[in-house]
Amino acid sequence: MSDQVYVGILGKGTVGAAFRELLEDRADMVEEVSGRRPKVTGVLSSKKGSFDEILAASDIVVELIGGTDPALDYVTRALKEGRHVVTANKQLLAQHGEELVAAARDGGAQLRFEAAVAGAIPVIRVVQESLGAIPIDKVFGIVNGTTNYILTEMTRAGLSYDEALKQAQDLGYAEADPSDDVGGADAAAKMAILARLAFGAPVNLDDVPFEGIERIKPDDIAYAKELGLSLKLLGVAERVGEGEISVRVFPCFLYPGHPLAPIAGPFNAVMVESSAITEITMSGPGAGGPETAAAVLGDVVSVVGGGSPLFEENAKLKVARDVEMAFYLHLEVDDQPGVLAQVAEVLGDNEVSVRSVVQRGLGGEAQLIMVMHPVSEKRFAAALKRIAKLKFLRSPPRSIRVIEEEFG
Amino acid sequence: MSDQVYVGILGKGTVGAAFRELLEDRADMVEEVSGRRPKVTGVLSSKKGSFDEILAASDIVVELIGGTDPALDYVTRALKEGRHVVTANKQLLAQHGEELVAAARDGGAQLRFEAAVAGAIPVIRVVQESLGAIPIDKVFGIVNGTTNYILTEMTRAGLSYDEALKQAQDLGYAEADPSDDVGGADAAAKMAILARLAFGAPVNLDDVPFEGIERIKPDDIAYAKELGLSLKLLGVAERVGEGEISVRVFPCFLYPGHPLAPIAGPFNAVMVESSAITEITMSGPGAGGPETAAAVLGDVVSVVGGGSPLFEENAKLKVARDVEMAFYLHLEVDDQPGVLAQVAEVLGDNEVSVRSVVQRGLGGEAQLIMVMHPVSEKRFAAALKRIAKLKFLRSPPRSIRVIEEEFG
Repeated sequence: MSDQVYVGILGKGTVGAAFRELLEDRADMVEEVSGRRPKVTGVLSSKKGSFDEILAASDIVVELIGGTDPALDYVTRALKEGRHVVTANKQLLAQHGEELVAAARDGGAQLRFEAAVAGAIPVIRVVQESLGAIPIDKVFGIVNGTTNYILTEMTRAGLSYDEALKQAQDLGYAEADPSDDVGGADAAAKMAILARLAFGAPVNLDDVPFEGIERIKPDDIAYAKELGLSLKLLGVAERVGEGEISVRVFPCFLYPGHPLAPIAGPFNAVMVESSAITEITMSGPGAGGPETAAAVLGDVVSVVGGGSPLFEENAKLKVARDVEMAFYLHLEVDDQPGVLAQVAEVLGDNEVSVRSVVQRGLGGEAQLIMVMHPVSEKRFAAALKRIAKLKFLRSPPRSIRVIEEEFG
Repeated sequence: MSDQVYVGILGKGTVGAAFRELLEDRADMVEEVSGRRPKVTGVLSSKKGSFDEILAASDIVVELIGGTDPALDYVTRALKEGRHVVTANKQLLAQHGEELVAAARDGGAQLRFEAAVAGAIPVIRVVQESLGAIPIDKVFGIVNGTTNYILTEMTRAGLSYDEALKQAQDLGYAEADPSDDVGGADAAAKMAILARLAFGAPVNLDDVPFEGIERIKPDDIAYAKELGLSLKLLGVAERVGEGEISVRVFPCFLYPGHPLAPIAGPFNAVMVESSAITEITMSGPGAGGPETAAAVLGDVVSVVGGGSPLFEENAKLKVARDVEMAFYLHLEVDDQPGVLAQVAEVLGDNEVSVRSVVQRGLGGEAQLIMVMHPVSEKRFAAALKRIAKLKFLRSPPRSIRVIEEEFG
């Protein structure tokens, strides 16, 4: 009989149950590929089980509770006592990543968290291992399946935001309280984790400004369709200058031919750019129970196989205060002479250069749709603030970023 | 000062030179992430250097010679003497994979070969590690950049096969003797490697039937464009029945919306399907010097980090003798009554069911373009053999497979 490896499971929710089932189902295969047969030492739920007993009996602790309390305490203790930890907990990693890496070093334990970002897409492993010694310029993509489903349905079926959200909830793609997903906070936590791995920089969740998709209107989608653009909620982590990085989450128009443009429904996709490899694109379903469980199992097998994942730690990168982006601007205005001139003047004063304008009269009202050349986000925000005060505006100005590069 | 890790390099060609430069360029980073600084012990070329001296001085042997002689001897000896080996050599792996894995076990050494398949796209690591304990149903994709470039240019710019090949050669995407690439043998070797990893089955290169793209005509491309289809050279490795797998390489029409349809130019893309994770798609540039060197470096870093990759070895899968596919059939015939009836009769006799027919008269000549429902490849081949003998045929029949599933 071969050795056993003792696995303690914290958490009995959807993912916890799916992982336990998968681990038992695949025990033969784990034994075959790793030489050790997994045995579950216990499953901790909020009502049942003792963490101390599970800890004492386990080689590997799999944390699937979510949130930071009590997960932070459990994971830190496990690592310090030399237990390897596999976790799917993005909040824990995004908020306490550095302490956890330090605890793993202290205890000589492995810490793996593939399931925390982009479901079964192995983006953590690729950034950390395949590209471990390659200088990464940019990691970006669609890391929230709920918002991608909503935007896809608004585009495909012409639904309003509220209708698409309701549909996503009915299908189980969105939670009853969807605010973390649709507001961008979930994507921001994932991008903080990816940025830390890609650049070895101490990125805090506070360093990641984020916008969500709640304010996207059918008008914006109509504009995108007319020009063949796709509207996506993007997370971006990139080097932007000497010693600076920028990490942020925002809705964005993509030109046709962009590798992320065809990613539809609840799928995730991540691109990694480096001068050494041009770019790699990875896509797949977002984090459902089975996909997350599969990613956790991959980490468990790697832990048994040995070989600690590698954390770069010396980079002295700072978070940039400003970056350049192109913007689309949608204004609903009174249809009267001089409107365009005044808007153009405000933009000019802030050195925002206009690339294209379409004005459409609708009775006494008009739509002014403008696309800017890439510009400092701060300067654009300053211009937008002044535009919002123009008296002929019939509703607050709406802006969405645009990525202009064409690929292929 | 930290430990050093001694790296011997076999091969001084494009990839050998690119890897040596990258290793020296990234030595700080390798040391930072792995704790050991790489030091090159020697570079073996056909004219200079001693393999025995390099072997004696090295912890890791990086084989970038290509071919099997003398690479097989060198790699086997290195592994048996406990030296870890990183190689980009697809022929070596495809033809001698099992002996090499056995040698690695004997010597207690690691064997890594990410660079052998799909350039910098980490498909080996994902199949072997992320999905190490997950039952994979199918691995397939575009694993030859030369042919994808040629097919893309035939479609985009309307070039003939010869013109597109010439252009690929001028740009360095195709070799002076392109036969391994355009004939499908290169893709077949890569699919044998992927199939062995995905299914743990002993797949020999002889088990992989392959067709290339040399006989693709502008007519076929025109048909594809008319229906919005993409023409790709696909490698497919899949479970096809109880205890059976099929591994093969063939040109194929893909319906719009298929994740592989937009992969253009010299790019590669691989999809992995499993009921546990639905599907993952990975794409990126094919194997150029820098991309291959980057993949080799990722393997070197993983070797230093420790942890042997895992080889599944117990599967008792057999290679299937037949599979079902849909086919497009292009016939150039005399434009006379009864032609369609005779072709239909031959197809019917072989139980090949026709899905659509277009007949186009061109003076005394006509084109008959038919698409079949999925059918046993053997039955279709039998029908094709009889059709080829019909006396009204003006040129040999041409058939191309069709993948009908729609995605997204």
